[in-house]
Amino acid sequence: MNNPFMARAIELAIRNVREGGGPFGAVVVREQRIISEGVNRVTFTNDPTAHAEMMAIREACRKLDRFELSGCEIYCSCEPCPMCFGGVYWARLDRVYFGCAAIDAANAGFDDSFIYSEITAPLSQRQIPLIQMERDAALEAFRAWENSPNKTPY
Amino acid sequence: MNNPFMARAIELAIRNVREGGGPFGAVVVREQRIISEGVNRVTFTNDPTAHAEMMAIREACRKLDRFELSGCEIYCSCEPCPMCFGGVYWARLDRVYFGCAAIDAANAGFDDSFIYSEITAPLSQRQIPLIQMERDAALEAFRAWENSPNKTPY
Repeated sequence: MNNPFMARAIELAIRNVREGGGPFGAVVVREQRIISEGVNRVTFTNDPTAHAEMMAIREACRKLDRFELSGCEIYCSCEPCPMCFGGVYWARLDRVYFGCAAIDAANAGFDDSFIYSEITAPLSQRQIPLIQMERDAALEAFRAWENSPNKTPY
Repeated sequence: MNNPFMARAIELAIRNVREGGGPFGAVVVREQRIISEGVNRVTFTNDPTAHAEMMAIREACRKLDRFELSGCEIYCSCEPCPMCFGGVYWARLDRVYFGCAAIDAANAGFDDSFIYSEITAPLSQRQIPLIQMERDAALEAFRAWENSPNKTPY
């Protein structure tokens, strides 16, 4: 094991399993120093969004007091699921390093690959139905945003 | 506007813009009653994961005291981004109703569609590099999970 940040992400994942949590860990690194750590807390906190990467991203933003993480990298014990992948993009991390692949997670019973296949399927063929309605009314929210004098773009 | 839940999601989005937040709202509904509401709090809370859908999902789980939302539906003022889409799947919501499409969000400056195109691109062609390393060491976390006597599968 040559990379200390990946080693730490894996160590966090294994320790979390011992504590009864999911087998995932992540660390956010800036200028070769760890600024936040996260483990999967879904079942402990009753929060399906509490994946290791999301926890590490949120904690890093709290510490840096900003809502994006450009200049930072994330090390994940496993390839991020689509939710965490989206989080990485919104956080504008520079780079992602991962250990296990999504297929390894699937083999262990965490079926990220199902979500990846769903996300690329046409809306009409999704297993969770996505139904559009009331678009004209909903566009009012974007019109309000465009006309707002006190918005913070991101 | 015929659907009261979508009307509420849109109302939340517009009100959030007036308060300086992003133009997004969402409600989680169970048995025809709203059990949680969310708005985009990214810039208020310095949390890039604080999208309306994620906030509503997390709040619904807190209220129901469980980590999944089967039997519930979510109404979103806009089509969920890949992060929120992943959150919907992990939360096991029954159905998603959305108002604006992802292209409407892109036109207003929120480029979910960039993430959607990235997520389907080969790893080698992603704009944010994803680099695998240390897979063998990382697999130890899944082995620990498989052998753990006190895990909570989800």
